[in-house]
Amino acid sequence: MGQSKVCLVVGAGAGIGGTVARKFAEEGYHAVLCRRTDEAKLSAMVDDMRARGLSASGRLLNAAEPDTLEALAASAEAEGPVDTVVYNLGAQIGNRALGDTPLKTFELGWRMACFGLFRIAKAVIPSMVERGHGTLLVTSATSAMRGNAGQHSHAAAMAGRRLLCQTLNAEFAVQGIHVVHIVVDGAVDAPDTLGKMLGAERFAALRDAKGHDKDGLLLPEKIAETYYHLAQQHRSVWTHELDLRAYSDVAWWNHPLDL
Amino acid sequence: MGQSKVCLVVGAGAGIGGTVARKFAEEGYHAVLCRRTDEAKLSAMVDDMRARGLSASGRLLNAAEPDTLEALAASAEAEGPVDTVVYNLGAQIGNRALGDTPLKTFELGWRMACFGLFRIAKAVIPSMVERGHGTLLVTSATSAMRGNAGQHSHAAAMAGRRLLCQTLNAEFAVQGIHVVHIVVDGAVDAPDTLGKMLGAERFAALRDAKGHDKDGLLLPEKIAETYYHLAQQHRSVWTHELDLRAYSDVAWWNHPLDL
Amino acid sequence: MGQSKVCLVVGAGAGIGGTVARKFAEEGYHAVLCRRTDEAKLSAMVDDMRARGLSASGRLLNAAEPDTLEALAASAEAEGPVDTVVYNLGAQIGNRALGDTPLKTFELGWRMACFGLFRIAKAVIPSMVERGHGTLLVTSATSAMRGNAGQHSHAAAMAGRRLLCQTLNAEFAVQGIHVVHIVVDGAVDAPDTLGKMLGAERFAALRDAKGHDKDGLLLPEKIAETYYHLAQQHRSVWTHELDLRAYSDVAWWNHPLDL
Amino acid sequence: MGQSKVCLVVGAGAGIGGTVARKFAEEGYHAVLCRRTDEAKLSAMVDDMRARGLSASGRLLNAAEPDTLEALAASAEAEGPVDTVVYNLGAQIGNRALGDTPLKTFELGWRMACFGLFRIAKAVIPSMVERGHGTLLVTSATSAMRGNAGQHSHAAAMAGRRLLCQTLNAEFAVQGIHVVHIVVDGAVDAPDTLGKMLGAERFAALRDAKGHDKDGLLLPEKIAETYYHLAQQHRSVWTHELDLRAYSDVAWWNHPLDL
Repeated sequence: MGQSKVCLVVGAGAGIGGTVARKFAEEGYHAVLCRRTDEAKLSAMVDDMRARGLSASGRLLNAAEPDTLEALAASAEAEGPVDTVVYNLGAQIGNRALGDTPLKTFELGWRMACFGLFRIAKAVIPSMVERGHGTLLVTSATSAMRGNAGQHSHAAAMAGRRLLCQTLNAEFAVQGIHVVHIVVDGAVDAPDTLGKMLGAERFAALRDAKGHDKDGLLLPEKIAETYYHLAQQHRSVWTHELDLRAYSDVAWWNHPLDL
Repeated sequence: MGQSKVCLVVGAGAGIGGTVARKFAEEGYHAVLCRRTDEAKLSAMVDDMRARGLSASGRLLNAAEPDTLEALAASAEAEGPVDTVVYNLGAQIGNRALGDTPLKTFELGWRMACFGLFRIAKAVIPSMVERGHGTLLVTSATSAMRGNAGQHSHAAAMAGRRLLCQTLNAEFAVQGIHVVHIVVDGAVDAPDTLGKMLGAERFAALRDAKGHDKDGLLLPEKIAETYYHLAQQHRSVWTHELDLRAYSDVAWWNHPLDL
Repeated sequence: MGQSKVCLVVGAGAGIGGTVARKFAEEGYHAVLCRRTDEAKLSAMVDDMRARGLSASGRLLNAAEPDTLEALAASAEAEGPVDTVVYNLGAQIGNRALGDTPLKTFELGWRMACFGLFRIAKAVIPSMVERGHGTLLVTSATSAMRGNAGQHSHAAAMAGRRLLCQTLNAEFAVQGIHVVHIVVDGAVDAPDTLGKMLGAERFAALRDAKGHDKDGLLLPEKIAETYYHLAQQHRSVWTHELDLRAYSDVAWWNHPLDL
Repeated sequence: MGQSKVCLVVGAGAGIGGTVARKFAEEGYHAVLCRRTDEAKLSAMVDDMRARGLSASGRLLNAAEPDTLEALAASAEAEGPVDTVVYNLGAQIGNRALGDTPLKTFELGWRMACFGLFRIAKAVIPSMVERGHGTLLVTSATSAMRGNAGQHSHAAAMAGRRLLCQTLNAEFAVQGIHVVHIVVDGAVDAPDTLGKMLGAERFAALRDAKGHDKDGLLLPEKIAETYYHLAQQHRSVWTHELDLRAYSDVAWWNHPLDL
């Protein structure tokens, strides 16, 4: 196990995180999945991967607490050289007016979306630099690109995440570290995140309206293909930022319009 | 004194903050100046304004500590209706490699550049909404627009500041609150900030190279004219974002180039 | 007359152009107004300004034809040193599907919105450089910032206009030429342009819905104040780009949202 | 031959264009290569592909002339359904001061970089819409993102190209047409374009300094892998824009910096 390159996924639910972990494992990586809660689900994901002959391990972790991400990085490195980190922690709390956004909420959003990335970068990059190679795939959102009403916490935190990706590339690309800021601009067909935020009923309605064979929700297994492609880009042609959205969605800078 | 509209300046040194405060006072506002340290200098600034017949008060404040900005907002409101807030706290610490940027430094940058703006916004906007009018002038920097090597802390924090300005406008513009994100893209002729960061000798050399009658450093009293103009814009033509730079500087998106 | 600084307004209708011309004339400039059609209206504007003691002249001009802008620049310079050019030609043709946008329309949009600015820049900048000072105020639109359905012609042309402003600043700012790209992000209360595009009835309805004392349409006389401020900025603090929108409008990057 | 999906490459030299054409042919497409000059080289490229069992044809074409792109689209469609268009025409002419950029040069830049894309889009999209599927891969450059001294023609033209991509997506994504704006931010190891612009000697020096095993020049065959990936993205996860640059280059928004 110590021989395989490790793909460490921070935020491995049933949506992007877990699916990307499985994709990398299918391509020969050892996947380390971590998430905040639900040990049963985490074990099921890891067991399912192992049952299919893939190499994986899992652990629970609260990224908002001190030393957790640092310990995670160390323990993942103990399972093999951490080649790729997928930073997939969300901080979306739905739309909240300023008056309904407590200071603690704003701070927690930053701890998850921005500070956590800084911490994991500090923890994993030195070893990557020694090896001359490493990849950070950072899941991001429309809110990293512009503020919008109700997104006080989310937009401020994700904007920090975005420019942190740029500072990391500016310092470390030349040392072989590739950081990609991936703007997921739309609703993902992910029961663990969107499903929880909306509740079962509204999520089912959204799936009926846009999902299934209409492909109006981003499919995690299709997202995973692009994540994997990005991690394999030759160092002469690295992507620093790209967007992903369903064909039937308008981009964040557009309003729906009848022609 | 309670009659005059208040212009509250958070971060009132000898550069942008203090100069903007004086400009607004000259135009009839009561200026409340606050800064973190140097009571003697603060008193001198306030005394100087009063000696010229202007209305001003001052206080020391550590914006990184809990409840300070909230108390400031309340006490400023007690001196008159807070019409304009100039949020001018910097968080520039010079260029630091990732390995030289401790977690505490990164967090402090965010507390000054981003969280402080959120806190003061929560504190002052409700009264502004009641009055149907208010202005937040937010001094910002190139680092709010893109990451750069060595700017891990600064860029992440200022990016959050920028998108927070956008979320505030998105919720409150329609209620009469005008937030402006002002990108100061260049070195300001300000001994208190740039001067301290560079040290006396390097600052003097910079002034000789670019300042004085060469106008290659942004002059605070000229910046103050644009700040004042922005605060007076009619509500049918509000600016949300603009940049300011010396004529002889290249914009942040350009490299120097010989034609 | 040859003594006064000239403000040359290309595209001087009853909206932004004519109003900015009058503002500069009121501040002591000699205004040269030109527009494509309606000699009677042009004469009325010039006569009205003269009747109020202002200095102005006018001419008709088709900016899409060769040599016209070049001749205009020369003849304006004959009336006095051209200090400020307001490039205010629009190219908005409403929303048109790709199939409804002929090649000629696309090309004409570019000739008006982008090529015309290049031509006038080539014509006026050399004399400005000799004098060490000059200002180009370029009215622009949301379409310069992002494409949108139906804006094939307009967005491509205005995007070119925007980056041309940046190339001009990159070469000429250091020589004393100040170019400002002004993003007018919303409907202007201008019967000559918006009024014509919508037709009298729809324009009246829009005014009732958003205009008058609701201030939901940008008022040309208020826009003119910011144009004038920009032209007076000290060279140590030049703005290259800013946006203008009504307080009650959402920014182009936001969708309307109920909180 | 009429059975295979067609990949039509407009601008097929020895760099990105020809290499992407070969990649798509290797994956089963029929490649139609066209370029402006050098029939011998074009034939050699097509012959080479055929000798390796790939399906390809070629033709010369001047995209700046009327009806050429339209005729190309029709004739390509006669060889099979045009599934993918790679619009790869450059318009870089090196750095030219405003005074050294004639009107004709500026117009030609626009005809190649912007108007040509509009024409080919009008010509190919209707059939794509009928089939419910099609892809436009648009090679672009740093100049599409910001102006820079000496880039008057190039930046204005490429900015138009970029926002045209956005308007096309805004109208046609929902109809199954995927347009990708690919920002090639750096020097490509391409003798036909960069090599010609620099001349043989300077190009050889650049290759010695940054190319070969240093991977500091973008390698066309590596670029082609990302182009192919983009064309295969599932419609639930389309990328509209991404950047590509060598690991050892700074991004366009950064200046080189010593830490």
